[in-house]
Amino acid sequence: MAEFDLIERYFTFEYDFSDDSKDTSANSPSAKSSKKPRVVKGIGDDCAIFEIPNKYQLVISTDTLVDGVHFFSNLQPELIAHKALAANVSDLAAMGARPLAFTLSISLPDVSMEWLQGFSAGIKSASEAFKIPLVGGDTTQGPLNINITAYGTVKKDRLLERNKAQFGDDIWVTGNLGEAAAALDLHQKTLVNKEALSASEQALWDALTKPEPPLKFARKLTKFSSCGLDISDGLAADLGHILKKSRCGATLNVESLPVSDALETVAGTEQARQYALNGGDDYQLCFTAPQSNRDKINKLAARQGVKISRIGSITDNGLKVLLHGKPFKSERRSWQHFNNDN
Amino acid sequence: MAEFDLIERYFTFEYDFSDDSKDTSANSPSAKSSKKPRVVKGIGDDCAIFEIPNKYQLVISTDTLVDGVHFFSNLQPELIAHKALAANVSDLAAMGARPLAFTLSISLPDVSMEWLQGFSAGIKSASEAFKIPLVGGDTTQGPLNINITAYGTVKKDRLLERNKAQFGDDIWVTGNLGEAAAALDLHQKTLVNKEALSASEQALWDALTKPEPPLKFARKLTKFSSCGLDISDGLAADLGHILKKSRCGATLNVESLPVSDALETVAGTEQARQYALNGGDDYQLCFTAPQSNRDKINKLAARQGVKISRIGSITDNGLKVLLHGKPFKSERRSWQHFNNDN
Repeated sequence: MAEFDLIERYFTFEYDFSDDSKDTSANSPSAKSSKKPRVVKGIGDDCAIFEIPNKYQLVISTDTLVDGVHFFSNLQPELIAHKALAANVSDLAAMGARPLAFTLSISLPDVSMEWLQGFSAGIKSASEAFKIPLVGGDTTQGPLNINITAYGTVKKDRLLERNKAQFGDDIWVTGNLGEAAAALDLHQKTLVNKEALSASEQALWDALTKPEPPLKFARKLTKFSSCGLDISDGLAADLGHILKKSRCGATLNVESLPVSDALETVAGTEQARQYALNGGDDYQLCFTAPQSNRDKINKLAARQGVKISRIGSITDNGLKVLLHGKPFKSERRSWQHFNNDN
Repeated sequence: MAEFDLIERYFTFEYDFSDDSKDTSANSPSAKSSKKPRVVKGIGDDCAIFEIPNKYQLVISTDTLVDGVHFFSNLQPELIAHKALAANVSDLAAMGARPLAFTLSISLPDVSMEWLQGFSAGIKSASEAFKIPLVGGDTTQGPLNINITAYGTVKKDRLLERNKAQFGDDIWVTGNLGEAAAALDLHQKTLVNKEALSASEQALWDALTKPEPPLKFARKLTKFSSCGLDISDGLAADLGHILKKSRCGATLNVESLPVSDALETVAGTEQARQYALNGGDDYQLCFTAPQSNRDKINKLAARQGVKISRIGSITDNGLKVLLHGKPFKSERRSWQHFNNDN
């Protein structure tokens, strides 16, 4: 099958984002308004085309998922597709951006129609869930490799950055942490033992394979915070990026980390805390904000139905990890893409 | 080495595009003007950020190069880097767009410092040659896979599209055709025989490994043409895209195809024509324009120092390939990414 046929058959979607028209006019390739960012042209020419009115900025994020590194190739293609798009949409959430569109470049070792159908269905349902249309890309033959570039928009200077933390800020996170990392370890165990999953284990598995970045909350949050990122490498490591870029320190209170009942059931209290602190793949938000915004932030989260936890505060220097006020030994296992340090 | 160190060491460049300030203000991440498209933020946060003033549109193109499919892994990494960027910049030329920035996602099987240094040098020199800064990306571990997404800008509706050919239009191409495809065949021969390259063979090899898309010519051309694309799959196949999208036909005059002396010397007249008609990887421009614009187009090309050839005309239906007015048997060998048609 030629590349063009493949794109036409599996990657050309009709979208219907009409259930929330106020929020999605910017996303529809057919939107007529020139006041909102819009996709002028999608799949079919040499390039996709966007218009970004003056009061907006376009933000761009790109992520690659490689077979055996970021997912297991025996995972259902629907889940691989969801995860690939969620990881990129999470970077948009990390900036407080509204999704505009994405491009998909995929290398495939061979063409299994069944796999492609599943992957295509997963891309379509995830793009509908995140309200972000596919507008172009590239298919090539080669070892399985999935690259997504996601485009979003922010109103000028209404965004979350890494270098904006201030002394005294609260540190917050959304959702629960550590579930995905625990599921990964679990997967290796269950692969060996071939046991069925318990309800708690299934919950962890869902967190790993179906992450839901808090997009809308992040966008509204830019009213009360200008510093944040998404947790993909583990809370401690990712918070480290904020501290480095903002040239400050932090105190983390481990007892305040959001740990789900499922994680505590499967891993026990002590190990659950390590997962929450150092596990990766959470795709939740970590952000900082002045103490004076606490009430507004709590109200926003309640309105959006998003769980948030206040887990520490920004200090002038160094990262202190405390459990009930006493030093906590963190077992860092953060993801490093290249470990052969030569 | 951690991903962050790798990006810092090999993919963080200081650019100096100052030799042509009129043309490059749009490209510099530090440009202060808000009247031109600009990169507000490059490498270092979750996303890159662009501003695209109202009278402009952003065009986006993405292409993946896979080891063994699009290049030979034993090729010098400088040349692989140049080719990867050139292929994407060529898609910007195909739209008549001005380069703004690009992102690079690379999967590497292991970290050879020597290879990375060469690849990094190649990316830097190509990005300087095309005046397009690297603003972000992703490095992962996996089989060698290079994905580039290139961003360019056009003034609203001043661009080359595939669906704009009109009955009676002239068909034009830039540069010489067929050299890259001939070099590919030659490479396979010389690999076996280990012979040194003649001057003509070297010229073909350079066309394959160091393509130079006619970016500036394409941008100026949008005054006189609104239909074009780049020749990457072979002239006949790519012209086919124009004919399909514009719902028209064409007559091609094979004797008018631009064939270099080098190609004729290496391949002979008959085979050179086949290469010009059906070879891929040319990264030249094919465009159509009203006959009334012939003089203006010839003058523009002369001013820009770009070779152009008028090779046929748009008809109402079907593609006729003629040599001195008589049917010419075209041996199509156009690139198909997936041939197992199941």
